[in-house]
Amino acid sequence: MPLFEGVVPPVVTPLTTAHEVDFDSFDRVVEFLLDAGVHGLFVLGSTSEVVFHNDRTRVELIERALKRAGGRVPVFAGVIDPATDRVIAHARAAQSAGVDAVVVTAPFYARTSQPEIIDHFRYVREALEVPVVAYDIPVCVHSKLERATTTTLAKEGAIAGLKDSSGDDGNFRYVLSDNAGLPDFFAMTGSEIVVDSMLNLGAHGVVPGLANVDPHGYVRLWNMCRAGDVEGARKEQERLCALFEIVRISLPRTSTGSAGVGAFKTAMRSRGVISTNIMARPQRALNDDEARSVDAILSSTGLLG
Amino acid sequence: MPLFEGVVPPVVTPLTTAHEVDFDSFDRVVEFLLDAGVHGLFVLGSTSEVVFHNDRTRVELIERALKRAGGRVPVFAGVIDPATDRVIAHARAAQSAGVDAVVVTAPFYARTSQPEIIDHFRYVREALEVPVVAYDIPVCVHSKLERATTTTLAKEGAIAGLKDSSGDDGNFRYVLSDNAGLPDFFAMTGSEIVVDSMLNLGAHGVVPGLANVDPHGYVRLWNMCRAGDVEGARKEQERLCALFEIVRISLPRTSTGSAGVGAFKTAMRSRGVISTNIMARPQRALNDDEARSVDAILSSTGLLG
Amino acid sequence: MPLFEGVVPPVVTPLTTAHEVDFDSFDRVVEFLLDAGVHGLFVLGSTSEVVFHNDRTRVELIERALKRAGGRVPVFAGVIDPATDRVIAHARAAQSAGVDAVVVTAPFYARTSQPEIIDHFRYVREALEVPVVAYDIPVCVHSKLERATTTTLAKEGAIAGLKDSSGDDGNFRYVLSDNAGLPDFFAMTGSEIVVDSMLNLGAHGVVPGLANVDPHGYVRLWNMCRAGDVEGARKEQERLCALFEIVRISLPRTSTGSAGVGAFKTAMRSRGVISTNIMARPQRALNDDEARSVDAILSSTGLLG
Amino acid sequence: MPLFEGVVPPVVTPLTTAHEVDFDSFDRVVEFLLDAGVHGLFVLGSTSEVVFHNDRTRVELIERALKRAGGRVPVFAGVIDPATDRVIAHARAAQSAGVDAVVVTAPFYARTSQPEIIDHFRYVREALEVPVVAYDIPVCVHSKLERATTTTLAKEGAIAGLKDSSGDDGNFRYVLSDNAGLPDFFAMTGSEIVVDSMLNLGAHGVVPGLANVDPHGYVRLWNMCRAGDVEGARKEQERLCALFEIVRISLPRTSTGSAGVGAFKTAMRSRGVISTNIMARPQRALNDDEARSVDAILSSTGLLG
Repeated sequence: MPLFEGVVPPVVTPLTTAHEVDFDSFDRVVEFLLDAGVHGLFVLGSTSEVVFHNDRTRVELIERALKRAGGRVPVFAGVIDPATDRVIAHARAAQSAGVDAVVVTAPFYARTSQPEIIDHFRYVREALEVPVVAYDIPVCVHSKLERATTTTLAKEGAIAGLKDSSGDDGNFRYVLSDNAGLPDFFAMTGSEIVVDSMLNLGAHGVVPGLANVDPHGYVRLWNMCRAGDVEGARKEQERLCALFEIVRISLPRTSTGSAGVGAFKTAMRSRGVISTNIMARPQRALNDDEARSVDAILSSTGLLG
Repeated sequence: MPLFEGVVPPVVTPLTTAHEVDFDSFDRVVEFLLDAGVHGLFVLGSTSEVVFHNDRTRVELIERALKRAGGRVPVFAGVIDPATDRVIAHARAAQSAGVDAVVVTAPFYARTSQPEIIDHFRYVREALEVPVVAYDIPVCVHSKLERATTTTLAKEGAIAGLKDSSGDDGNFRYVLSDNAGLPDFFAMTGSEIVVDSMLNLGAHGVVPGLANVDPHGYVRLWNMCRAGDVEGARKEQERLCALFEIVRISLPRTSTGSAGVGAFKTAMRSRGVISTNIMARPQRALNDDEARSVDAILSSTGLLG
Repeated sequence: MPLFEGVVPPVVTPLTTAHEVDFDSFDRVVEFLLDAGVHGLFVLGSTSEVVFHNDRTRVELIERALKRAGGRVPVFAGVIDPATDRVIAHARAAQSAGVDAVVVTAPFYARTSQPEIIDHFRYVREALEVPVVAYDIPVCVHSKLERATTTTLAKEGAIAGLKDSSGDDGNFRYVLSDNAGLPDFFAMTGSEIVVDSMLNLGAHGVVPGLANVDPHGYVRLWNMCRAGDVEGARKEQERLCALFEIVRISLPRTSTGSAGVGAFKTAMRSRGVISTNIMARPQRALNDDEARSVDAILSSTGLLG
Repeated sequence: MPLFEGVVPPVVTPLTTAHEVDFDSFDRVVEFLLDAGVHGLFVLGSTSEVVFHNDRTRVELIERALKRAGGRVPVFAGVIDPATDRVIAHARAAQSAGVDAVVVTAPFYARTSQPEIIDHFRYVREALEVPVVAYDIPVCVHSKLERATTTTLAKEGAIAGLKDSSGDDGNFRYVLSDNAGLPDFFAMTGSEIVVDSMLNLGAHGVVPGLANVDPHGYVRLWNMCRAGDVEGARKEQERLCALFEIVRISLPRTSTGSAGVGAFKTAMRSRGVISTNIMARPQRALNDDEARSVDAILSSTGLLG
């Protein structure tokens, strides 16, 4: 059996108007997700604005998530920074705090080759006890985890799983078939909008940022796919695609990054889960007009009365 | 008069075989550069492998450089990390240590827009007393500091200068003419190989990584350009271009990043300035064969007996 | 009902050792595809090496395909060249020859904007009687047909359908939902490896280059998807994914382009459909070693005894 | 001595309001350029909108240019289309018409490798008698002519020269030094705004699109650089940089391509050289407001009374 299966939202990090973490709202997010039946939590991913947070805040967020989850589901932690030894430092702190796995990207800022990326994961693996999940997100780190890189690392046990946010569905399928003989290995998609397809072709898990807004929807989608309800899954997925249109509302006034997480935060505020839609600096929050457009989509997709 | 003019090498960070900073070698690098007559030092830039170092090491490197320089030349410090508040934390530490200016890139990992990049520099500016130099390095941060962004920041005083490692010489020329009316503003090129051209069209400073290997050459080049010796400058530049071929020796066995700084370190070892050519993990150092090729180029360009 | 549905292979153009079209082999390709039960033919697409052929050869290929098909299935023709008026000239010739639709990309070489791309399709539409299919292939033309561009053109009737070779499955899904209210509109995927997924989410047609090698496989896959046989479709798709590995055999000795179509031609030669695996100049054909690797994959996927 | 030296404008192709070539205006452009003292003419380059024109129009333009030039200066002709055999067909027609050299890009649309690009130039070379100039324009063809590719072709005599529109000044410098031992070889820059720098580091020619608007300026710049008048050259270049700002006026309403050549045409209309500023379809011409902005810049740079 794969080490992990299910819906594991990348947990949004709510902020106060003073740009500090709003831990009360954070607790509510965790409860909101667990109430909906998600199978795991992924803190300190890109959706969590991880690279905006310093070492101390990162540990506090991990500890808070672990405490609130209370062992009900596994907790994964992103340990994301430009280079190996800083990643290891984050990872050791996360491991000490008690996370179930750490999630590691390729190095960034510095330009590294695939062999150096392989070494990067090996160094991280050697320094830790907990499972390591590779995080393929070229839009942020500007290196692709090539199929041969992922498969090499999986086969030698350096990584326990993959979170694929590359949008390259064909490559994802080949990674699945390459590693079909590894019973523990799990591969998760970061997509919000082709989750039904990815589950149908064998994905073990889904990590949709949009699950912060509608965790019940993604849990339903997961259950339908597991039950073989192809038509029901497609309908649910299409509703979630309609909901996902919120990520385009503030473009091009804000960056793509702000538009996406900013829309999630705005929708979560409208749903009463968090208190502000503030983004970490220098990202811009959605404004009032944009928030009204978010609400209109929440209404039309059944999430706002 | 511009706030700064001259040759300001981005100081290489020597490592021990245990991957720790070799501070004795670092002192020797600083002396080597100052003996050659450089006009400033830039620590913790990309050539310094800045993003590989944690908070504590960064402060130690700044303090060591300041101590060793002893006020003989200004010391600039890179304060490079993915987002605003972490940059401000680095910058405050650098300011406390006594640097003459901090050098700041656009945010990275997160995808930000030009207006958000402008805000980023404004936030940094507001939090500090020391001058802020904008660092345009799209090959690492994957955002270009657009001409209008740089000029907006220069005109409102948010930045005191620019270090341009974008390779877009035409844009650099427009930035110079846009800001010709700002007497303090200075623009420096990160190029190694068209320094004569950039000085001729008005650059105030040069920040060549290769100056770690041959600071005397770049100081000569600077002096010739200042003296209007066009022909002499071209000859010196062409010798430095021949020397710069060392950065291609280990390609494609290593990444572009490792190949460049790795070649500088290897050449500095051959010249007796530092003790190892070790690179920060996961980057690969040049091997013995590659080191011999470096030496051959050092010989043919007059740097090795 | 959509104007077209089904499997429509982009027909390979066989060449003689003198680099001329081998029309006898071309006839055999057409028969091979029709015997397998494909629902249409697409001549002069990227897989047909369209841009390598001059005006006269293009018309000859269209006429030959129409004659050989003899009305058994619709014939689409690519009318691909850098700019509007040259595209119109090709399209008028194709229309005169009797094709059922023409397939048009965004302009290339010249850098055009989305509004100019929209105008491009409008000009083509105004000049013709036959249906126009938009061909989204950013890897060749270096412009994406943005969702709003495709939808604008579909809603005003400038295009009858879309062939999507962009690999952006999420965008494809949105184009489908945007145009769900247009009963005639059809959207086809150019993918070889996620055809089951794309059909499941609503694609009306598939245009896999690999169908030149195994048309029976893609027809079976189509029929299984239509019949709701999810598990059977996945198995067939996975066999085709294993077959598709042939496109990587000659990398990096040849370019990506040569590696793909070159592998198709090599496999078709092994299956006795065409006489050579020659590529249009300056593309390199697969060599004998590479051909043996192709044969090994043909054997393991059941296509070679 | 290099085979060619001097200013060789890429000649704009004027159109009528019916989108046909306006040959009377074309004659006036040729006279305007020759009167200003340019050293050669380059017809059917990117600035000439070459890929928009069919075979017949291309030959007519070559013949007209040759006739009008009447042997006063050499005439180069672009022979630009996606693949080898079509390029050879254009090149033979140009050779028959009597051009002094043909200008050839890497293949486009199809994705080719550097070895295939080398073969492309070799095939073209073998098919012709006239000199072949390599045209490096990655922004249009999306392949860079790598330094080793250019040097290989130069050393074996497959190309007589290079036109570099890549914007990679450092690479250009290395190509010059690589081929310094080839007395005939010539390298020309396509830059408008760092011409003084490129001449200073050894360029043999300049091919600025902006020379259609102000040929006298580029001839003056050439003469000053030849005479060693560094300061005069910088001043003239800076005036031309101020003039070059016209290429940004219609952005983002039009594409980059339309904005550049469209601005040249608009300025040439204002200067009385051509009759319309019409662009080949689907490119958009500058509108009246934009034309007024062009005129303002013409006035401030001394070109409009």
